[in-house]
Amino acid sequence: MKSGNKRKAPSDQVSELTTNRLSIYLRCLNRLEQAGVDTISSQALAEQFHLNAAQIRKDLAYFGEFGVRGVGYYVKDLKLHLRKILGLDRKLRVAVLGAGNLGQALADYPGFGREGFEIVAMFDTAAEKIGDQSRSGVPIYDIRDLKKMARRERIDIGVMAVPAEAAQSVLDMAVAAGVKAILNFSPGAIKIPLGVKLKSVDLTVSLESLSFYLAQGGEGE
Amino acid sequence: MKSGNKRKAPSDQVSELTTNRLSIYLRCLNRLEQAGVDTISSQALAEQFHLNAAQIRKDLAYFGEFGVRGVGYYVKDLKLHLRKILGLDRKLRVAVLGAGNLGQALADYPGFGREGFEIVAMFDTAAEKIGDQSRSGVPIYDIRDLKKMARRERIDIGVMAVPAEAAQSVLDMAVAAGVKAILNFSPGAIKIPLGVKLKSVDLTVSLESLSFYLAQGGEGE
Repeated sequence: MKSGNKRKAPSDQVSELTTNRLSIYLRCLNRLEQAGVDTISSQALAEQFHLNAAQIRKDLAYFGEFGVRGVGYYVKDLKLHLRKILGLDRKLRVAVLGAGNLGQALADYPGFGREGFEIVAMFDTAAEKIGDQSRSGVPIYDIRDLKKMARRERIDIGVMAVPAEAAQSVLDMAVAAGVKAILNFSPGAIKIPLGVKLKSVDLTVSLESLSFYLAQGGEGE
Repeated sequence: MKSGNKRKAPSDQVSELTTNRLSIYLRCLNRLEQAGVDTISSQALAEQFHLNAAQIRKDLAYFGEFGVRGVGYYVKDLKLHLRKILGLDRKLRVAVLGAGNLGQALADYPGFGREGFEIVAMFDTAAEKIGDQSRSGVPIYDIRDLKKMARRERIDIGVMAVPAEAAQSVLDMAVAAGVKAILNFSPGAIKIPLGVKLKSVDLTVSLESLSFYLAQGGEGE
């Protein structure tokens, strides 16, 4: 189904902020579809979800002509387009590296499955965890088998949830196993090998924006 | 130490993207300080951490005159300034709402303590968890005691890690207990009461930017 000659958006021309916004639009469209809404204008979409209408039009125009004059966007159609742009039109197979509390929580996070991500395996070093499974049934394997399993299970994305001191060696193992994209929850510095896309989630940044809000007078006194 | 008449940055004039960048600068300065670096130019800071020098200068200039011509920024000084701007010059007391895997992982997340956030309590409904504690020693209380405990423990921020179907009622309880800022990890729609700042972390968005990367040719075939 891929038409190589019509590809409009090489990843290096589209910033991560844009893809984050596309994800958010997709989330809004999901809600509209659930609410039975068939069409929506960029203006109404912006108002309902506290977004910017001009930004929506610009972001979407980059990938094609999705709006219909006088109608706006067809919710179902735009949703399918966005899923395709974001590469969500196929199942993506995900392994969670580290089966501690965070790893287990991520393996069972209900949002992932809903958007087409399939958590197929967890990996850990602890003998008492290997062979066990998460609450939702994701099996835990020995991290020494990562290379073998990553091939067998066709892992697309690794989610790292290991202690800071283990992060570098686990990342290197994942890359050696052929995993091309990593979502990293481990804090601390890390050297990113060539040929892999790593996205770090620093949970502290989110807390600090709340701290800023409180410091600027949100204290209610 | 607060000089109210010189306050330059009411929270509604500074976007969340800016505060997120300030957090990231702070993280970089921490690393520079650990590495023994005394001064750094915006240019060098940008190069070393893949940031934008003009953006750094603009973000910082908004809050004051921190750079020194011919020197750049004093790492220690700028770090203290940023901590103050972000409201991190005092301990912030955090409660985690929900003591499942995610709640427990967040309660024990080592990054929080390092930046001055103190996780003082978890709350849950499950009788077998109440009275227990997380691996790092955060006690778990009955969520019905949230109001009483939030006062006694002077909770500044609530971190919500409950199932989607419990999110709204737990948020309402937190607000009723006087918590003014919420970091929300629960997926799904939620009505935000007036007078509270809620920041939602949607872990799926991060995964989708990796999916986009893979879809655009990161597959390595």
